[in-house]
Amino acid sequence: MSKTKFNVAVVGATGAVGEQIIRLLEERDFPIDKLKFLSSARSAGTRVSFKGQEITVEEAGPDSFAGVDIALFSAGGDVSKELAPHAVRHGAVCIDNTNAFRMDPNTPLVVPEVNEAQIFEHKGIIANPNCSTIQMVAALKPLYDKYGIARIIVSTYQAVSGAGSSAIDELNRQTKDIVEGRVTEPAILPVGSLPVKHQIAYNAIPQIDKFQDNGYTLEEMKMVRETKKIFNDESVLVTATCVRIPVIYGHSESVYVELKQDYDLEEIRQLLADAPGVTLVDDPANQQYPLATDAAGKNDVFVGRLRRDLTNERGLNLWIVSDNLLKGAAWNAVQIAEIIAAAESNK
Amino acid sequence: MSKTKFNVAVVGATGAVGEQIIRLLEERDFPIDKLKFLSSARSAGTRVSFKGQEITVEEAGPDSFAGVDIALFSAGGDVSKELAPHAVRHGAVCIDNTNAFRMDPNTPLVVPEVNEAQIFEHKGIIANPNCSTIQMVAALKPLYDKYGIARIIVSTYQAVSGAGSSAIDELNRQTKDIVEGRVTEPAILPVGSLPVKHQIAYNAIPQIDKFQDNGYTLEEMKMVRETKKIFNDESVLVTATCVRIPVIYGHSESVYVELKQDYDLEEIRQLLADAPGVTLVDDPANQQYPLATDAAGKNDVFVGRLRRDLTNERGLNLWIVSDNLLKGAAWNAVQIAEIIAAAESNK
Repeated sequence: MSKTKFNVAVVGATGAVGEQIIRLLEERDFPIDKLKFLSSARSAGTRVSFKGQEITVEEAGPDSFAGVDIALFSAGGDVSKELAPHAVRHGAVCIDNTNAFRMDPNTPLVVPEVNEAQIFEHKGIIANPNCSTIQMVAALKPLYDKYGIARIIVSTYQAVSGAGSSAIDELNRQTKDIVEGRVTEPAILPVGSLPVKHQIAYNAIPQIDKFQDNGYTLEEMKMVRETKKIFNDESVLVTATCVRIPVIYGHSESVYVELKQDYDLEEIRQLLADAPGVTLVDDPANQQYPLATDAAGKNDVFVGRLRRDLTNERGLNLWIVSDNLLKGAAWNAVQIAEIIAAAESNK
Repeated sequence: MSKTKFNVAVVGATGAVGEQIIRLLEERDFPIDKLKFLSSARSAGTRVSFKGQEITVEEAGPDSFAGVDIALFSAGGDVSKELAPHAVRHGAVCIDNTNAFRMDPNTPLVVPEVNEAQIFEHKGIIANPNCSTIQMVAALKPLYDKYGIARIIVSTYQAVSGAGSSAIDELNRQTKDIVEGRVTEPAILPVGSLPVKHQIAYNAIPQIDKFQDNGYTLEEMKMVRETKKIFNDESVLVTATCVRIPVIYGHSESVYVELKQDYDLEEIRQLLADAPGVTLVDDPANQQYPLATDAAGKNDVFVGRLRRDLTNERGLNLWIVSDNLLKGAAWNAVQIAEIIAAAESNK
């Protein structure tokens, strides 16, 4: 590229993540030359405002990417699988927010706070990890560097927005039905494409994405595999339980980590306080800890409830919260785009 | 006692747990001679129906227990501390649902499925464990017996009803405010007696009860200490993260357990299917697993999502759900009362 302004395409411009990507490009004044909003045929024609202008969303196709420098994909794995190779063929760098290429050995899987250098190893596509993985590895990175991580046992408390706009609508509809005394029927969650539906309002559903043959869900296996790939360390053992709860924005995670060495809790507190992209909120005396409602709308990863496992000198409990649509998706993607843009501008 | 009908007192008759105790005594046709409903001065005078009769709630005092055989306490720790000794003085057996006597070495802490025999070791008071502990140990008992348990790492998803009727009202009020577009203010949760309040609607609050000096909450430490006491085994290591979520009835728990021996997953499935008071709901292919909305109103503990930790041959993940007001409180207490009554009747 070697330029200072970029032609940018947003694929999935009308989705929950796409909307946040557009808002971030606007707010952060991303150096844009031409901007293109793409979507499925169903949403094409929608008008989306950007810096006071109305941009009409176009249907995404193999030839939508002529002249595009950076393409941000968040329209589902099938769309990425089909169209990202065409974008690459047209010379674009794709930042893909879906599961399509994450475990592809030729595709870097990047959380800038952890493995920023991988961005420049790309062969056209850079994968954005799964939301629940991103916030966990961003918070654990300083611990990994200082002490090493032997294993992670994580239980998640995930917001419905991770399942898209229709899941947000579903929680709102069910809640309204129940508040107003009507019987409510589930229609979307836990997994839109599967036959069995469960109520999410006033419930906790221990299924996110489809079950694999080993009894884990795909979401749980993403946390296992992506963590190893991002740390580039197969020795990090991970076991996960992923649960959807009636929260709209912000995933919370109860993370148990066993470090490879003895640690000093005050030192960990300081490492986290100094870590880029991480905000330490850990003041039990004043009942301060990360909360989904506080994290919503913010780019950082919030960490608190730090305490030693009383039964294991190397065990540590943490509570990690972040806005799943921002650091967990749109912000991590735009952050990667900004790093690419800065590098090109400095060439 | 040695009788077939019993004089029963319910202390805290108008509270969330008291209401369920009364309903269970009614439904299960508990062998009652005289029945007395007691409460604080504030609720005294309320009329509560029982088998078609209206019973007026009386203010509880030191002399309320004359002639009482079985007193079921669920009016808070302070009331139990003050009045249970008076009930014992009058010859009653107290089944106490508060934290007042749980760790007292002279007081048995009983989950009938685990340590029923302890009931008959009482010196006047039998403690009902904390809701989050009861459902966990009831489900883990068959595993403990067969393989031994080295350690437990648990993260909870707890319903607001565990914090009493005012917390249910709070979630309902906040939800209605938000659904109807009003700003909502938290007033009760996480802990009524502490100054800082957090919104529970659309949130996950990692604080249940007060913080201890070690950084854990009292609820988390209850799970640690009570588990050891109920299994009568200090070698069972427990570390807990307790979280309140916007659910009204039913606690869910993500439990990671490391057994002392290698295990066979199918055998564990069979052990749980056969365990008293436990219902196995574990059919991922058909998206069947325990859910708070399904457990609400039922006495059993529901277990599912059984799967081996892929990184530890002795590690097992489970998802344990139960109605916190029933097996977690009222049902466990009435179950103990039934066992006492049956033993007396057979004398």
